[in-house]
Amino acid sequence: MSIQDSVTTTLDAATIEKLLDTRFPQIHANGRHFIEEVTPELTRVRLAADDRNIRPGGTVSGPAMFTLADFSVYVAIIGQLGESGIDAVTTNMNISFLAKPEAGDILCRVRLLRVGRKLAVAEAELTSCAAGKIVARAVATYALPAR
Amino acid sequence: MSIQDSVTTTLDAATIEKLLDTRFPQIHANGRHFIEEVTPELTRVRLAADDRNIRPGGTVSGPAMFTLADFSVYVAIIGQLGESGIDAVTTNMNISFLAKPEAGDILCRVRLLRVGRKLAVAEAELTSCAAGKIVARAVATYALPAR
Amino acid sequence: MSIQDSVTTTLDAATIEKLLDTRFPQIHANGRHFIEEVTPELTRVRLAADDRNIRPGGTVSGPAMFTLADFSVYVAIIGQLGESGIDAVTTNMNISFLAKPEAGDILCRVRLLRVGRKLAVAEAELTSCAAGKIVARAVATYALPAR
Amino acid sequence: MSIQDSVTTTLDAATIEKLLDTRFPQIHANGRHFIEEVTPELTRVRLAADDRNIRPGGTVSGPAMFTLADFSVYVAIIGQLGESGIDAVTTNMNISFLAKPEAGDILCRVRLLRVGRKLAVAEAELTSCAAGKIVARAVATYALPAR
Repeated sequence: MSIQDSVTTTLDAATIEKLLDTRFPQIHANGRHFIEEVTPELTRVRLAADDRNIRPGGTVSGPAMFTLADFSVYVAIIGQLGESGIDAVTTNMNISFLAKPEAGDILCRVRLLRVGRKLAVAEAELTSCAAGKIVARAVATYALPAR
Repeated sequence: MSIQDSVTTTLDAATIEKLLDTRFPQIHANGRHFIEEVTPELTRVRLAADDRNIRPGGTVSGPAMFTLADFSVYVAIIGQLGESGIDAVTTNMNISFLAKPEAGDILCRVRLLRVGRKLAVAEAELTSCAAGKIVARAVATYALPAR
Repeated sequence: MSIQDSVTTTLDAATIEKLLDTRFPQIHANGRHFIEEVTPELTRVRLAADDRNIRPGGTVSGPAMFTLADFSVYVAIIGQLGESGIDAVTTNMNISFLAKPEAGDILCRVRLLRVGRKLAVAEAELTSCAAGKIVARAVATYALPAR
Repeated sequence: MSIQDSVTTTLDAATIEKLLDTRFPQIHANGRHFIEEVTPELTRVRLAADDRNIRPGGTVSGPAMFTLADFSVYVAIIGQLGESGIDAVTTNMNISFLAKPEAGDILCRVRLLRVGRKLAVAEAELTSCAAGKIVARAVATYALPAR
């Protein structure tokens, strides 16, 4: 798919990964984020375990979970809007930390609750792959670029 | 001040900085956090400009602002509770991004709204030092260790 | 079931309804709240359409939706903790309004995300029965009574 | 002031009160809301003590505080935008309950943090007049009508 065509098309995981690796390579500074799936119903991103996102005591840090949630919602929006979504910006994030995640990969599942003209709202659920339980929950609001 | 005494005493900025540098050196991984002031009324922490927290386009990243807000509230709680506060954990953070902060230092001012038996609630206001305007606003809830 | 037994037992919808009608009759002041289901997985409460919760233009008011979300989470906690849960208090509510709900019943589905020693966290999803779509989403934190 | 003029003018407390009494008389259904001050820096609204907003045990109800915060931010936006602000809608509210307010008047102070093209963000601080202490804190996001 050419970039020109993609503006009004839903992008798939591989295309979004390539796009963001070019434009935002620094997203992976504290642990690689793998875009595993992008469909209209679900976006799934995995944060790989990495010394830089582990805290003493062996838990994944809060900021690393915030970053994963924020990035995953961003990916979901780009998947929905196409490349124009790259100019979307977070306006609000509410994140609840539910359990200390042991060191290991964290999986984030995003569901878009609303994509309006001005705003998108999405929920993100973070699961510890090792423990198989929910460790954090977030609701994010993004301001969308004019289309 | 001995560690035994500090449990029920308000700690000052220099003491907290030393304590956290020993226990959480990785907090400075994406830019140095300077604890400038810790009083019962106000805690002030400055995030130094750093390539690792700047996004393309020259703005400070959202995760860097989240990290600053979360850390600053944590410092305020330790300032209030003494060293036992080090076991406090974030349970919820609600952060609103109000303006894109241009590259440069970010100052975070924290006010403790409530320090109860189980929970502490605080607000954090983030200002871009260069532009002199508020760039983000957060309310954080921490679960406190049993005392 | 006697009240003594109920402390460590999950209460069902009818028992909770009776309990709350005695203790908090005013919850129904702006529209009757029907407790339809209380299981460990799901709590479902329906707010009946009522002139007192309709705004001009024919939409259900924001405060009515907040009240429904808050009450439904409270019911879920009592369902889980038994009658002692009646002393739980809301410490934080984050609610996103996603669509204007047309006049009519609103259904609230609650899922408890975490019930710890001090805190419970739950999500509430509000659906307009007429339109069959999600109109609001909330995450609530409750402080739990000592057990 | 004619309605035509008011669109680009800051409205004062009395004008807004008259406007809303005509359009939204039901806001006062659970206790009278008095608009005491509307300036660019501060909006102040007082909720009068009223049996309908008091809970058993003699505290002001959470939904009454949510309603006060939401209404006060709405007043601040109308004060800033003029009559066109009447079409602003709440998209997100995050409210922390800090202390049980004893029965009595509640004062809400609103500060607009950002009024952009699409969104306004404001903080609201609720004080119990009787106890003279902060009882709740909220941050609200409103979607603004096209201007």
